[in-house]
Formats: sequence, C-alpha cells, structure tokens
Amino acid sequence: MDTPSTPPAGALRARGFAFEEIARDGAARRGRLETPHGTIETPAFVGVGTQATVKGIDPDAVARTGTQVLFANTYHLYLRPGADLVEAHGGLHRFMGWSGPLFTDSGGFQVFSLGASIDHRVGKVANIFPEEGSESAVGGGPPGSVSLRRLRNRTSMVRVDEHGVRFTSHIDGSRHVFTPESSIAVQRALGADVVLAFDECTSPLHDEDYTRESAERTHRWAARCLAAFEAGGPRHAHDQALFGVVQGGAFEEPRRRSADVIAALPFSGVAIGGNLGRSHADMYRVLDWTVPALPESLPRHLLGIGDVPSILAAVARGVDTFDCVTPTRNARNGMALVRLDDDGVLQPRGRINLQNASHARAERPIEATCDCATCARFSRAYLRHLFKANESLGPQLVTIHNLRFMARLMREIRDAIEAGLFDAVVRRWLGDGVRARVR
Amino acid sequence: MDTPSTPPAGALRARGFAFEEIARDGAARRGRLETPHGTIETPAFVGVGTQATVKGIDPDAVARTGTQVLFANTYHLYLRPGADLVEAHGGLHRFMGWSGPLFTDSGGFQVFSLGASIDHRVGKVANIFPEEGSESAVGGGPPGSVSLRRLRNRTSMVRVDEHGVRFTSHIDGSRHVFTPESSIAVQRALGADVVLAFDECTSPLHDEDYTRESAERTHRWAARCLAAFEAGGPRHAHDQALFGVVQGGAFEEPRRRSADVIAALPFSGVAIGGNLGRSHADMYRVLDWTVPALPESLPRHLLGIGDVPSILAAVARGVDTFDCVTPTRNARNGMALVRLDDDGVLQPRGRINLQNASHARAERPIEATCDCATCARFSRAYLRHLFKANESLGPQLVTIHNLRFMARLMREIRDAIEAGLFDAVVRRWLGDGVRARVR
Repeated sequence: MDTPSTPPAGALRARGFAFEEIARDGAARRGRLETPHGTIETPAFVGVGTQATVKGIDPDAVARTGTQVLFANTYHLYLRPGADLVEAHGGLHRFMGWSGPLFTDSGGFQVFSLGASIDHRVGKVANIFPEEGSESAVGGGPPGSVSLRRLRNRTSMVRVDEHGVRFTSHIDGSRHVFTPESSIAVQRALGADVVLAFDECTSPLHDEDYTRESAERTHRWAARCLAAFEAGGPRHAHDQALFGVVQGGAFEEPRRRSADVIAALPFSGVAIGGNLGRSHADMYRVLDWTVPALPESLPRHLLGIGDVPSILAAVARGVDTFDCVTPTRNARNGMALVRLDDDGVLQPRGRINLQNASHARAERPIEATCDCATCARFSRAYLRHLFKANESLGPQLVTIHNLRFMARLMREIRDAIEAGLFDAVVRRWLGDGVRARVR
Repeated sequence: MDTPSTPPAGALRARGFAFEEIARDGAARRGRLETPHGTIETPAFVGVGTQATVKGIDPDAVARTGTQVLFANTYHLYLRPGADLVEAHGGLHRFMGWSGPLFTDSGGFQVFSLGASIDHRVGKVANIFPEEGSESAVGGGPPGSVSLRRLRNRTSMVRVDEHGVRFTSHIDGSRHVFTPESSIAVQRALGADVVLAFDECTSPLHDEDYTRESAERTHRWAARCLAAFEAGGPRHAHDQALFGVVQGGAFEEPRRRSADVIAALPFSGVAIGGNLGRSHADMYRVLDWTVPALPESLPRHLLGIGDVPSILAAVARGVDTFDCVTPTRNARNGMALVRLDDDGVLQPRGRINLQNASHARAERPIEATCDCATCARFSRAYLRHLFKANESLGPQLVTIHNLRFMARLMREIRDAIEAGLFDAVVRRWLGDGVRARVR
C-alpha cells in the first residue's frame, strides 16, 4: 500500500489543532479538541447542518443551545450551491454564519445512501438496526434517506471502481464523479476545520467478502486522500485536520483490519463509519473490535449515532464525538426528547410526540427541568398548536429543545468523567439491567 | 340606532390605555399609544401573527427587529386551537410568548375572505387594486387568500344576516356562527390589548347599494359589540380597548356616513377597513373622506395596508398604525424589501427576489445599510442557497429583514414628524412626481 512516508501516524498534526485528554474514567475520556475556530469539549455531540444550515435554526440560536460544533455535508454542498461558490465567500464558516468548529463528511455516505449500488442495490440507510424494530432505535439515515425497498427498486445511480464513484444527482439527475482527490479538493474549498477521508459505506446487506474488498479499497482511498490533502494544502487562512474512516462492516476480521490500517496512517483523527450491525449489541461489538486499536492521542468520532444508550456505550469505550440527524429530524416531526417519564424516572429513549392529543391543553413545557429557550417560554399545548397549524415555528422550537437536550447530556457525561462518576451516569440512565447490555 | 348611553364618544376609556399626540406636522401625527403590555410609538407598523405566531419567527427575534406590536386573527384562533384553550393558558400573550402589545381582529375579515358571500361570491381579497396590476402593489390578501376566480366558483361558505354570519371552517368544513357578541366573547377570551368590532368586509365587486346596506348593518353590529364588550368585561388581569371599524367601501356617501357613525360611538380607537378601491388614488380619496371625521383624541388604524407609498400617504392624512401580511408573506417567497436601487436612489416599492440567478454569487447582504440580524451576517448568495435548497431558514432570515425594514421606515417617519420634516421624507421616498399623487 502506498502511504505518504513523511508524517508520523497517531499524532494530530494540523496547525491550530490539538487534542488533550484531561480526565479518564475507565476507557471513557474527557478531552479537549482545539480547532482554529474554537475548542470542543469532549465527549461532544456534533449538530447536523446538512445544507450549510441546521434546518430552521439561526446559527446564533444553535450556539445558544450549547452546541459546540456542526457537521455539514460535502455531497449536498458540492451539488448545491457548489464548492467554488462557498470558497469564493471565504469558506463555509462565513457562508453559513457559524464561527465555531465545523466538520464536513467526505460525500461518501450520501453518494451511497442517496444513490444505490448497482451490484448490491443498498445504501448505508440499511444501518438502522432492523432487528430492533424502529428506524430511530439507534441513529438513523440522512435527511431524505430512502427505504431498502425503494433502494432495491431504484435503477442504478451509483457505480464504484478503484478510481472513485460515479453517481447521479438527486436534485437534477446530472452525472458526477467523486474520487478521493476530488472529495478532498471539495472539502479544502469548503474549509471546515475537520474533514473526512473519502470512503465507501457498506450496508448490512453486503456479505463479508464484499465488505472486506470494499474496506481494502477504502484503505487505498485513505492513502490517496492523505496525499491529496498534503499536496493541495489549505485554501483558507486556517488549517484543516483530516480524519480517516474505519470501515469493515459488522464483521470482526475486516473491522479489526480496517482499524489497524487507518490507525497506522498519519491522520489527525479517526471516524468509525459504515455498517455497525443490526442491533445495539452488534454496534458495541464493532466498537470493541475498533476503538482499542486506535491511537490514544487522536480524537475518535462515531458517525451517524445519536441515541442516549449508544452514546453512553460508545463513550464508555473511548469515543469522543458523535453526529446524528435524529435529534433534529425527530424535532421537525414533533418528537421532543425528554429525560424523565411522569414518575421522574430517567428514560434513555424518552421522547414525546407533541402532535398527540394528550398535549392539547398541557400548560407545562416539554421538560420542566430544561433550561432551553423553548421550555423557558412555551407550553406543550402551544407547540402542538404550531404543529397542527403547520407553522414552522413548531419544528424550530422543538429542534432548539432537542439540541439543548443533547448538549446537556454531553455536559453531564463530561462532568461525570471528570468526577470519576461516569459509571453512575450510565447506571442512572440505563439501570443495571440495560447497563449489563451496554457494558 | 341603539347605542350604550353611558360612555362619552371620542375618548380612550380602557384602564391602562392612553393615547397622546406628542408632535404634529400637517395632519401627520407623532403619537404614543399606551397599553397594558407596553407603549406603541406611532406611526407604527403592526406585525401579523395570524395563528399566534409570526410565521417562522421566534417572538424574541420579532422584538429584536423593533416590531412593537403584533396582530393575531380571531377567526383562525377560534377554529384552532380554540379561544377557551388560549384563555385557560392565561391569554394570547402568554400562549404565544409575546409580552408586548397585541391586537386581534374581529374575525370578520377572514369569514368573508376565506369563505365567500353567497350573493356576491367575493371576499375582501378583491381589495388588491387590480388596476395597478400587481397583487402586492398595495397591501394584499390574508394568508391563504384566494383569487376572485376561485371565489366565484366556490360553493357558498358564508351567509350574512342581521344576527351575524354563518360560515364553514376552511380547516375541516365544520359549520360556525360569528355574531358581534360571540366575536367579542372570543376576543375577551384571547385577551389582546386592542380588539376590533365585528364588521362585514365588502369588496370592490359590491355595488353602492349593497355596500351602504352592509355598512348600516356593521354600524348596528358596532353598537352590539360595544354593549357586549361592556357587559362581559375583561377575563384577564389587564383591560382591553375596543376599536370600531369604518366601512362604506370606495363610495363617498356611505364611507363618510360610516366614519361619522363610528366616530360618534364610544370606541377607544378607530380602524379603517373594507374595500379601499382599485388604486392608490382611490384609497387616498377614501382616507380623505374618513380621517377628518374621526376624533382627534383616538388612535386610527388602517387595516391591511403595508406598502411604503400607502403608509406615507396615510400618515400624511393622520393615520397612526398599519398592519399588513405583505412584508412577511413576501419574505417567505424570497422577496426582500430594499430602500435603494443600485444607484443609491430610494425605491418606494423597492424589493429584490432573492431566488433570481443574479444573486447566486452576491456576497453583499440584502441591504448594506441595514442593521438587521440577517444583513449583519448573511449574503444574498447564502439566502438564495437556502431558498433553492428549500431550507426554512431562508424565509426566516428574510422575514426578519423585512420586519426590520418596516420598523426602520416607521422610525424614520416618527423622527421626521417630530422634526417637522415629514414632507421631506415623503419627497425623499417618492419624489415630487409621485408625491403629487400621494398628497
């Protein structure tokens, strides 16, 4: 395998970046990731701003929820408005009015989930733990994600070969190609603080042989991404950090192999992506195969996961950051995250549907104990009215609550790790029975 | 005509209310309308929050635009979520999180514009000055307003008689009745600071005879509204002020007669409603027939008008407040209000369509001289991207700009009246040629 020989693996090398572990409790890490646009206290939840906006939320309001960092999508922004336009505006931070840290993905996820593989006719949206019933049981697909049935019936929109991926725009049917080099070029133009290597996202419908072959190709692409990243250099005043992506599906050998390969490459951080299996238990196994192989000195990101049990389990295994559309997407459907049930017991998957008639006259806020701008001012009945009247302020206010919910959860986790009490947080949220499955 | 005999006409009598004229320039008045929820510096633009929300805008963000007062719709809130629910929540202010002054209309406008008269099959939406071409030339219809063609083809949804109006819900087809008494009861339950008498809104397709008969009925309803208002009393901790509504269409004799009748009744303010004709010139004539007949001591509101030439012309004739959906509705379609053209000349009907390709790469804000939260942070290109990507942050950010535009316009008008320079403002905005038509 060709890898650039100059930089040492396992060190965060970009200018303006540093990762420091400031406390540890078991394998759980309390860290601090410095970026040119500010410091991310970890563990942290990364809010999703697919099209250079957290849907419906002013970036200042996003910041007021305590959200420290946002994730934007290379695939979407490449197609619309175009990376050159964003670059001409001085980059994504300035374009979208967000002065804090930003991640961009590589475009691979959307290429495979919004398109469909010709040979396998599935996308990463299959990664929804069907055995656990609900799509939102853990994580969830991207905005506009499609069902497996639709993927199977769709004519081919994606072709993969060693060079890269040919795909068809979901917007206008135009044809495009992403390669490791072009993905990096687009992400250099966008100018996020953290950018991701271009990978192929396999799904639970891929067998072990395909998953292994795909992961090996992703490793070759990883080396090409590193080379392109160094050759191109930053196009904005600040430097960027390139994270590698571990693939290998839910198969032990390919997943362990991928973790070893990505760990040995001179990335500034590592993201864990692809198919994590069909259940929480599968995902925890994948993390157990992966995380111990990763360099201690680098930040670790888990892609597309944002439910409370998964976050607690992943933090327990040493993951630092998470992104997921579920908290914001659910909010737009009136699903508000709540910590407590009516008896005051923590609910790790607690949420209420504000469209339910039971909230029609409820004067209480989503959560009496929440300090968000929504709970401070609005009743469940008012929020339900907004959804029933199809008023966009409803999704806006619930999104703010759910982002605040995630920020408070992560702060609780950080404080607990610092105090050496992370285990108590896990037990409080999940109880001993569930905890046994998490640990 | 039966009128309550106790209270004197022409005095603002509600507790917690006062109207003071603090400067005058010709007939233009610089006033101050005190309400239980704060003072409105007049002339003022009233933002429209039809369904207890300015569409897509957090009430705190509305306040930050300098918008002093909002207008909510009795018809909509009666149907959904119901006045009893709002009352149980402590009233509209608390329900919608707006602590400033609030107006509610009587429901009459929506009954006639969302329904259709059986005899005439038109609604007030006809009041769009068809001779001047564009629907948005002056004012505009309510949210969800329908074209005359659609109204003509619609089966009857509204029946008017002396008792009141039977109408069909636009939401679920259920049958309802509004009377002067029930409109006041609903508005007492909602608890806005300023409430309006229940009137019939005639349209340009009504002839003079029907318009005269309708106005006489509206006058009888006005007396019933006053009686019901006094008999019911406030249902919240604060008092409310009842404004009468002048009708009479664009016909001189009925309009003058209506102004005289309403002026003689013991209302706390007067609104000018109904059909104002088919052109700006028609509207100015209607104002010339109406305003001089109104008590000096009472605030005067012009219903449904919000374009710059009309506001300047109406202020010049002594109108104090205005409401209109156009600034916010246009914003949701990407139409941003601008003061200057590319040569720096004031444009009284200036607006740009942010969806136009010409803005695709424009790094400048909507207006370089605007101090709104949108212009301070976002380029036209970013706003265009949001509209093209169907992102609700686009309508939100442009609405904030347009509300700020209106607030700045009204402040400029207030400052000019205080300085005795209102004529210069009219000349600056409209030029001598247009000014001749305004004056």
